[in-house]
Amino acid sequence: MRGKFVTFEGCEGSGKSTQLKLLAERLNGEGVDFVMTREPGGSDIAERIREIILDGGNTAMCDECEALLYAAARVQHIKERIIPALEAGKLVICDRYVHSSLAYQGFARGLGEQYVADINAFALKNCPPDLTVFLDIPPERAFARKHGADEDDRMEQLGLAFHRRVYEGYLAIAERDGAFCRVDCSGTKFETSRKIWQLLKQKGIV
Amino acid sequence: MRGKFVTFEGCEGSGKSTQLKLLAERLNGEGVDFVMTREPGGSDIAERIREIILDGGNTAMCDECEALLYAAARVQHIKERIIPALEAGKLVICDRYVHSSLAYQGFARGLGEQYVADINAFALKNCPPDLTVFLDIPPERAFARKHGADEDDRMEQLGLAFHRRVYEGYLAIAERDGAFCRVDCSGTKFETSRKIWQLLKQKGIV
Repeated sequence: MRGKFVTFEGCEGSGKSTQLKLLAERLNGEGVDFVMTREPGGSDIAERIREIILDGGNTAMCDECEALLYAAARVQHIKERIIPALEAGKLVICDRYVHSSLAYQGFARGLGEQYVADINAFALKNCPPDLTVFLDIPPERAFARKHGADEDDRMEQLGLAFHRRVYEGYLAIAERDGAFCRVDCSGTKFETSRKIWQLLKQKGIV
Repeated sequence: MRGKFVTFEGCEGSGKSTQLKLLAERLNGEGVDFVMTREPGGSDIAERIREIILDGGNTAMCDECEALLYAAARVQHIKERIIPALEAGKLVICDRYVHSSLAYQGFARGLGEQYVADINAFALKNCPPDLTVFLDIPPERAFARKHGADEDDRMEQLGLAFHRRVYEGYLAIAERDGAFCRVDCSGTKFETSRKIWQLLKQKGIV
């Protein structure tokens, strides 16, 4: 039987890494056969593309180029890693997926949702997640929890406006994508972890 | 005044490199201010993407990844190199452009024209060529002229079937794109060169 595909999304400071770590521990404890992977990357070619995307020296990179590189790394990751694991019956957990591109590049960078959906047509049509867990915390609260508020910091303010658009993008997606589930993560990490586990059980993933 | 943008397309063996060299000599002789560039590449980031595309070790690369990488390199090349040169009033000549992706990836690799057009929406909408010169020679004749026919060579036969699809893709594009002009290049290189120059004059490029 084909495995289930679950992706995790969230703004900076939403605690995604922590939650994925707690989830992996729980899955190991329960003896679930799973693969945990991340974007961008997850295959040799995708990792080479990741290097170009994340290279701090590539300041001249335009938004469209960035979005296309993410989509290129994604499709390679899907074909080399995600689909084979699903076909082997494993549960696949992916840290960020196509909804990150929709929220970050489509909404926050202003490329438009349709353009980003078009260049990610393979992922959306051929490998949609069975469940997307959105760690829901408004960026103002996430920033406050992570750094403390620094309202005089121009970059942080710029960052906040950008992350507000990312967050609103995610909310817009949540309104119409039935597989996209919001998990309130304003509590402690253990409270959030229990909510995620409940959601996975409720959706028949574990 | 914004400069003109001319792209060159053709199958393997159509003599594109030779014709571009002859054209550059003529343009230099006439004192035309022009930029000659090529795809994939033409900017630092695009050259790094080119390395991944052309790396013979990347045999696992899927067709969609390849098409997205070409599109990523293209948009960066357009923004960093082509548009600034056009805005400086220069004639820009580009060796291959979006029509190569449509013919090679859309038609020959079977990704479909719409998918390739979608991922290349920026090039098609924001930077369409004023003229595309298609060096028209059926691949059978081009192969014969280049290598001599080797009908026992499986790879060459595979290659021929592929290049036949590329050629048919170009012909399909030619039928509906008014800026896409076929130049019969079955004669000598100097005959073809004269035809190209006539076309450029007729279209008000030189």
